[in-house]
Amino acid sequence: MSSQHPGSTEPLTGFAARHIGPSASAAEQMLSTLGYDSLQQLVDSAVPAGIRQEQQLNLPEPLTEAQTLEALRDYASQNTVKAQMIGQGFYGTHTPQVILRNILENPAWYTAYTPYQPEISQGRLEALLNFQTMVADLTGLDIANASLLDESSAVVEAILLMRRANRKKAEAPVVVDTDIFPQTRAVVQGRADALGIEVIFHDVLGRGLPEGEISGLVLQQPGNSGAVVDHREVIAEAKERGALVTVAADLLALTQITPPGEQGADIAVGNSQRFGIPLFFGGPHAAYMAVRSGIQRQLPGRLVGVSKDAQERPAYRLSLQTREQHIRREKATSNICTAQALLAVAASMYGVYHGPEGLRRIAGEVHAKAQTLAAALKEAGRDLVTEEFFDTVQVRFASGASAEAVLFAAEAGGVNLRRVDPTTVGISVDETTTPAQLGVVLDAFGLAGSADAGREVAEQAARTLEEGVSFPVSMVRTSEFMTHPIFHEIRSETQMMRYLRRLADRDLALDRTMIPLGSCTMKLNAATEMEAISWPEFAGIHPYAPAHQTAGWRAMIEDLESRLSAVTGYAEVSIQPNAGSQGEYAGLLAIRRYHLSNGDAERDICLIPASAHGTNASSAVLAGLQVAVVATAEDGTIDLQDLDAKIAEHPGRIAAIMLTYPSTHGVYEADVREVCGKVHDAGGQVYIDGANLNALMGLAQPGEFGGDVSHLNLHKTFCIPHGGGGPGVGPVAVAEHLRAFLPTTEVGAGWATEAEGEVREGAPVTATPFGSAGVLPISWAYMAMMGAEGLTRATEYALLSANYIAARLADHFPTLYTGEGGLIAHECILDLRELTKASGITAEDVCKRLIDYGFHAPTLAFPVNGTLMVEPTESEDLGEIERFIEAMISIRAEIQEVVDGTLSQEESPLRWAPHPAAVVGADQWDRTYGREQAAFPVKGLRQDKYFPPVSRIDGAHGDRNLVCSCPPPEAFEL
Amino acid sequence: MSSQHPGSTEPLTGFAARHIGPSASAAEQMLSTLGYDSLQQLVDSAVPAGIRQEQQLNLPEPLTEAQTLEALRDYASQNTVKAQMIGQGFYGTHTPQVILRNILENPAWYTAYTPYQPEISQGRLEALLNFQTMVADLTGLDIANASLLDESSAVVEAILLMRRANRKKAEAPVVVDTDIFPQTRAVVQGRADALGIEVIFHDVLGRGLPEGEISGLVLQQPGNSGAVVDHREVIAEAKERGALVTVAADLLALTQITPPGEQGADIAVGNSQRFGIPLFFGGPHAAYMAVRSGIQRQLPGRLVGVSKDAQERPAYRLSLQTREQHIRREKATSNICTAQALLAVAASMYGVYHGPEGLRRIAGEVHAKAQTLAAALKEAGRDLVTEEFFDTVQVRFASGASAEAVLFAAEAGGVNLRRVDPTTVGISVDETTTPAQLGVVLDAFGLAGSADAGREVAEQAARTLEEGVSFPVSMVRTSEFMTHPIFHEIRSETQMMRYLRRLADRDLALDRTMIPLGSCTMKLNAATEMEAISWPEFAGIHPYAPAHQTAGWRAMIEDLESRLSAVTGYAEVSIQPNAGSQGEYAGLLAIRRYHLSNGDAERDICLIPASAHGTNASSAVLAGLQVAVVATAEDGTIDLQDLDAKIAEHPGRIAAIMLTYPSTHGVYEADVREVCGKVHDAGGQVYIDGANLNALMGLAQPGEFGGDVSHLNLHKTFCIPHGGGGPGVGPVAVAEHLRAFLPTTEVGAGWATEAEGEVREGAPVTATPFGSAGVLPISWAYMAMMGAEGLTRATEYALLSANYIAARLADHFPTLYTGEGGLIAHECILDLRELTKASGITAEDVCKRLIDYGFHAPTLAFPVNGTLMVEPTESEDLGEIERFIEAMISIRAEIQEVVDGTLSQEESPLRWAPHPAAVVGADQWDRTYGREQAAFPVKGLRQDKYFPPVSRIDGAHGDRNLVCSCPPPEAFEL
Repeated sequence: MSSQHPGSTEPLTGFAARHIGPSASAAEQMLSTLGYDSLQQLVDSAVPAGIRQEQQLNLPEPLTEAQTLEALRDYASQNTVKAQMIGQGFYGTHTPQVILRNILENPAWYTAYTPYQPEISQGRLEALLNFQTMVADLTGLDIANASLLDESSAVVEAILLMRRANRKKAEAPVVVDTDIFPQTRAVVQGRADALGIEVIFHDVLGRGLPEGEISGLVLQQPGNSGAVVDHREVIAEAKERGALVTVAADLLALTQITPPGEQGADIAVGNSQRFGIPLFFGGPHAAYMAVRSGIQRQLPGRLVGVSKDAQERPAYRLSLQTREQHIRREKATSNICTAQALLAVAASMYGVYHGPEGLRRIAGEVHAKAQTLAAALKEAGRDLVTEEFFDTVQVRFASGASAEAVLFAAEAGGVNLRRVDPTTVGISVDETTTPAQLGVVLDAFGLAGSADAGREVAEQAARTLEEGVSFPVSMVRTSEFMTHPIFHEIRSETQMMRYLRRLADRDLALDRTMIPLGSCTMKLNAATEMEAISWPEFAGIHPYAPAHQTAGWRAMIEDLESRLSAVTGYAEVSIQPNAGSQGEYAGLLAIRRYHLSNGDAERDICLIPASAHGTNASSAVLAGLQVAVVATAEDGTIDLQDLDAKIAEHPGRIAAIMLTYPSTHGVYEADVREVCGKVHDAGGQVYIDGANLNALMGLAQPGEFGGDVSHLNLHKTFCIPHGGGGPGVGPVAVAEHLRAFLPTTEVGAGWATEAEGEVREGAPVTATPFGSAGVLPISWAYMAMMGAEGLTRATEYALLSANYIAARLADHFPTLYTGEGGLIAHECILDLRELTKASGITAEDVCKRLIDYGFHAPTLAFPVNGTLMVEPTESEDLGEIERFIEAMISIRAEIQEVVDGTLSQEESPLRWAPHPAAVVGADQWDRTYGREQAAFPVKGLRQDKYFPPVSRIDGAHGDRNLVCSCPPPEAFEL
Repeated sequence: MSSQHPGSTEPLTGFAARHIGPSASAAEQMLSTLGYDSLQQLVDSAVPAGIRQEQQLNLPEPLTEAQTLEALRDYASQNTVKAQMIGQGFYGTHTPQVILRNILENPAWYTAYTPYQPEISQGRLEALLNFQTMVADLTGLDIANASLLDESSAVVEAILLMRRANRKKAEAPVVVDTDIFPQTRAVVQGRADALGIEVIFHDVLGRGLPEGEISGLVLQQPGNSGAVVDHREVIAEAKERGALVTVAADLLALTQITPPGEQGADIAVGNSQRFGIPLFFGGPHAAYMAVRSGIQRQLPGRLVGVSKDAQERPAYRLSLQTREQHIRREKATSNICTAQALLAVAASMYGVYHGPEGLRRIAGEVHAKAQTLAAALKEAGRDLVTEEFFDTVQVRFASGASAEAVLFAAEAGGVNLRRVDPTTVGISVDETTTPAQLGVVLDAFGLAGSADAGREVAEQAARTLEEGVSFPVSMVRTSEFMTHPIFHEIRSETQMMRYLRRLADRDLALDRTMIPLGSCTMKLNAATEMEAISWPEFAGIHPYAPAHQTAGWRAMIEDLESRLSAVTGYAEVSIQPNAGSQGEYAGLLAIRRYHLSNGDAERDICLIPASAHGTNASSAVLAGLQVAVVATAEDGTIDLQDLDAKIAEHPGRIAAIMLTYPSTHGVYEADVREVCGKVHDAGGQVYIDGANLNALMGLAQPGEFGGDVSHLNLHKTFCIPHGGGGPGVGPVAVAEHLRAFLPTTEVGAGWATEAEGEVREGAPVTATPFGSAGVLPISWAYMAMMGAEGLTRATEYALLSANYIAARLADHFPTLYTGEGGLIAHECILDLRELTKASGITAEDVCKRLIDYGFHAPTLAFPVNGTLMVEPTESEDLGEIERFIEAMISIRAEIQEVVDGTLSQEESPLRWAPHPAAVVGADQWDRTYGREQAAFPVKGLRQDKYFPPVSRIDGAHGDRNLVCSCPPPEAFEL
């Protein structure tokens, strides 16, 4: 690459040539259409000189794909894989290989987008509905959502939900039992402090509920101590006193113990990690939330529901989408917009594959192993913290030294135990625990000299399984769960493989079509980037494993953080936030704490332009800030006069402004430095949303042109696949003066922190030190392979392709906003409002019709209603771009027929789109247009045609008739 | 599993429960339909008591999936991965990760069957056509086949082809130049001895052609010595003397040097391994053969060609299928029926991804690195074997000790060089060779003290690339190659990913449907079985690496061989044969050599029942035996009278009988012991074809009930996926007295043999000691996870499901042959001949119509014309079996309409089947039946419908108009 000039269209080499779609000759052709001599000239015209960075990015030389794998193997080799019996919310599990290969390693699943277009998402929606059904059944509650980010933030969401569902008492404190995981306590405390919510940590189980008003109660089952406790009484009392009750519960335990719903709880939350998802050094895993009927409309996150399509057949969709923050903005009560869809899908398939009887058997074996260990320990006179447990046994020592010795001996034998506190050791058993490992544990406690000890324990455990449980009899689960046929039909691997293929085939993902989603940057997720994530040396590490076992992870993460700093121009980056929304929250929190540390408690106003992404406002609210909206001018830029006015309106109170750059209108604003200056002059900080970093990287650095904080989206700019709606990673990047306010990695206690050199004092935002660590090798590999020049070239090609599409479509669909020279950044907003007025055909109709052409729709109605925002990214080749242009022009002609009155709106294929095979191949056909126009409107479709499995879905019907668990199979018979 | 009884339908546990399709309750239901109380009872009724084994199989306890991966990791850790600069036909290469993930790790590709049903195979046929086009272009010849097994056996095939294409001189000797790989020489010698062909190894390049008649000449380019030699003169002379000429050539070299076709050769053969296929410890890799126009109808192996479908659109198919041995039998001239389809597909995609300019660049860099190494060595006064080379430099030493020292030093530095002979060291450079490795090589030769030496060499190499070549100027390639657009369109990973998805979607494989192919045993290829094959510690090992680096491979192979011995009841197994046909050949050769060692040279008659698989006769011929056909009775069993007669007819000449058991008629013959006895009494050996071992394992052992030799098909009974037509593995199993005649593993020389304890003295049948070693972890894992009881249960369920299908279809399609109690073995032959007579609808029509129902067809017209042979295997669940039965009954009703005259044969959907989407969704519809009957004849199809991309293909047209390279894109426009 070293021979290339900036803005060069010389043929690329190395991985960059594989990542970037258009060839050099295609680029020449595109530039010529646009009337530019060179990419350099185009870039210089589009990007304001005032923000351009002067130097090339300071990054190491790019590696080849092979070198990258070698480097990752080197990092991996610096980690030590032990049997992970630490527990504390994270457990060893067997990922069925058929699920690993056919979901987690299959682009048809992992490159899919969030299922906002339900007609091309029926496969993953079914999988998520299975997840919801499984969680609702296991928790004994009525309705579950399609996943949350992690258990600790799920508890926070539950607290927020209890407060808003409990209006009368919304200001009363929430009580959290002290037998809760320390990471959850830390995250809750941080959020409570930020929002000014009163949370009382109280030994509820030991001392009863505290006096006074309470709005909510949070319990954990089994507790942090491992204890399984009958909560019925305390729940009843809390409810009597007007509180709502949340139980954080272990899903596997719930197959054996009475579920929260049956104990009276309103809400259950937790983690589904141990349903086949690797430990991943802490994430990503799908957390869950289930609620009783009556408060389901308050559920945060996404909710899959059943509606019907135009043929009146059942069809899945996301329910109650209006709850999402892009609608609620500053009235939002949650800023969650990413779920952990891919992990929820995988966990649901673990449930499908094992079925209720399989899960019960696994749980029974786990319990029996724990029972037998406990019996041996007790017989030897060890002091157990509780004798009523499911999978976790804790032992108290008289001295810290004795506890250390046990931990050390176990580690030497290949087993990690939990350092609960200086004198307490925890042992958590899971489905992977072997007799040999049980033997190591016994040895570590000095209980057995023989190598056969483990096998004897295992044999004993097999007997114990028949002989009763080690928790209160009142807690033995008697109710059925997972009774739906889907949890009973699939037991063979062949069946599972075909079910996964069948579902994947119903969907459109990046492996079949471009997904031209403005603001979502759906670029290539390269196989080399994905390769390392399932290596045991990465995937098999517990988030709280001793730091000396995780040197490879830490070195890779540190390098990634420093590369992200180099790219953004900030002093430091924390990759802890496990979604963009969490990154925003962490960034705003840093700003808030910075002001507080300066004694500026009164700085609580966050300025947000009208055009901002809805999440911005929600995050500001959750960081304890008040939102003041700044008007945007007609061209999409910030109204400087209104900015001045808003600043003047709140003297001394401006905490920050949140900008997106380039703006959500897809335009580079030339005066961004001026905006930043005004806010800085008012004593505020500048937050630059990194959603559109794909239009900046290598050309300009937010940390340099005015930002104090940004969050990035590794699942946009840095190639982590969208996974059908998560995982995401939303690192937060800050300037020097904010470093100390980054989230601490000292979360979860244990040995995790011993290697931390640097002090980050901010509250943790997730349950684990490094958030969704498991997917970070993807972004690391991307940056390592692209290098400075590759990343810059990617940005330039993203601009080129977006401008090419805007230009080619200009005569058919006008682009709403443009910047200098009529150019846009990396996405364009196609304005359909005039056409809609003239024809009644809406932007949504166009989205649905694109499905018939084999395309995923662009972003609909954001940031402006009646428009489509198109972002091709640098990864789409010219052939695919031309295919899209051809489709759009063809659709435009179809609209013209309605405009001209040739067809009425109701007769148009646009209104009937999309067209499933069963409709096109039906004996009856009563449309005004022909079948070929329906299914094969352009010639290229005849060869390899995607048919959606359903026709247009009736969204309103689904919201009116909320059904969020699997419908009976008969429902699908027609 | 240990609690289960034989024939039990108690719920299975462990992996067996995942591998076997029907649940326990399904099995009860199936048994009840069949009228049996238990599986035990069914098995006892079906399998003759006389052959049943008494003991359970003697195998280790089954492992779980996790334990299996752990055990494989343990084997892997005993191998040492070095930079492999040994060369000798096998080279380091970068497998593009997008190809690895989306082909080699994607069940849509690897579970596909051989494309005998072209309408559901258009994707892999296109990929293979790309392979053929690429090979033909690179070799400068007119037509290439769709791959052969390995380079050495491809040379044998070329020799056979030259002899049969050269009828006048067929008895004249073939001359093979001595600068050919030693493994090829060994394989050629073995085959020549067996067939009684005269092959003269002669230093043609040094001494010219020998005197006398010659029928063929074989050269190698570059030679074993690395030399690139201009062959024009010697080729011209050989042709003048009436010989045909074959050149074994390296495909990568052919991008830079003049190809064999342009030098006048008639045939080129070689290996495509270095086009992105891992070393795999020797295989599987796709060998190739290309020929000049005029002899293409003599090509062995499979040939993809272009024909047209019922809509007159171009469509791919296997051309000239009649050449295959199942037609030619004892007149066969080759017994090849497996190709290396999956590897040919992957190699073709390497060509598509890099394009001609990329391949030329890779080759140029390789050559420059070799040049620079050679220059340094020469400058230091080293004695080079040749100074005209492509990638390989050989250095002669005065003493063996000096050569050893170099080899040792290089190995210590992480590089394997080649031990050519005691005083010669070979260095082969490839695309993976790094500057550091070049440095190690220089260090090993004592040429450089500095660590920068490699980098300097690499920089020098970059300059050399511009400065000319180190081979004769007359050998610089000037002609274009790979000019077809497919080799120019796809450069980005996104494009490649989508191309692979698009092709895969055109095909039906096991990941979407059962493939009920009688005699092919298409069972589950489990993800855990597939997992290890791409681990670098297995995939990155050179076949001739020193034995001390391959301890893990050898231990795993030895264990696999011993498990296969235990299952079959033989004394020993060799896994060297890389296809069933090769196993047959090796087994018959062992018999032949055994007779010779007893002085029984006159024993040259091989008895083969009329019902045998065609390959049997072909293999016998190739092992130097004459075939005598034994009649089969009407019920499919061997006619004992005719057997007696045939034995009496050839006193003292009976070498062997070849049986298939159960017979190819799908029936257990009760008198098999008697048959074996008669042949033994006549002094012959008994060869039992293991094709149907899936009906025996755990119930009976061929080595026990009369066999002296069997070959097995690991790609049938032992879960190696069919890969769309290969790889296959065909181990040969022998009784004690034949052990010494197994193929030697001392092939390829070098260090490979140092750890061999045992003496196997038979000729090698493949180029490498362990054949297609790379896929052996699949079968090892299968056996390890199933254990004795799991394997036995698999057999029993295979019987159950086959008998269930036969019974359920009895009223609709009679089963042709049955054994005791009306039962069959693991497959049933459905007789359609009466229906065909009554309706004109053929078995082939039914095959094509099944595509509309989403099924792959059963085996057509084997072993009896007008029939379909159905084998469900144990892996299909009852739901899928019922879906198949429903389809067959529905089809039967469609036939009845023709029988009844409701529709004419020409009006029937059976005759028009299959129905692509473009036909069903066309504006015009002039069929007598409706569109819904065409596409959705049963209800279940509405939800997830597979549409074939083409309608019925005209086979005869394709054979008449042979086009075997990619047609221009315009051909597909309609």
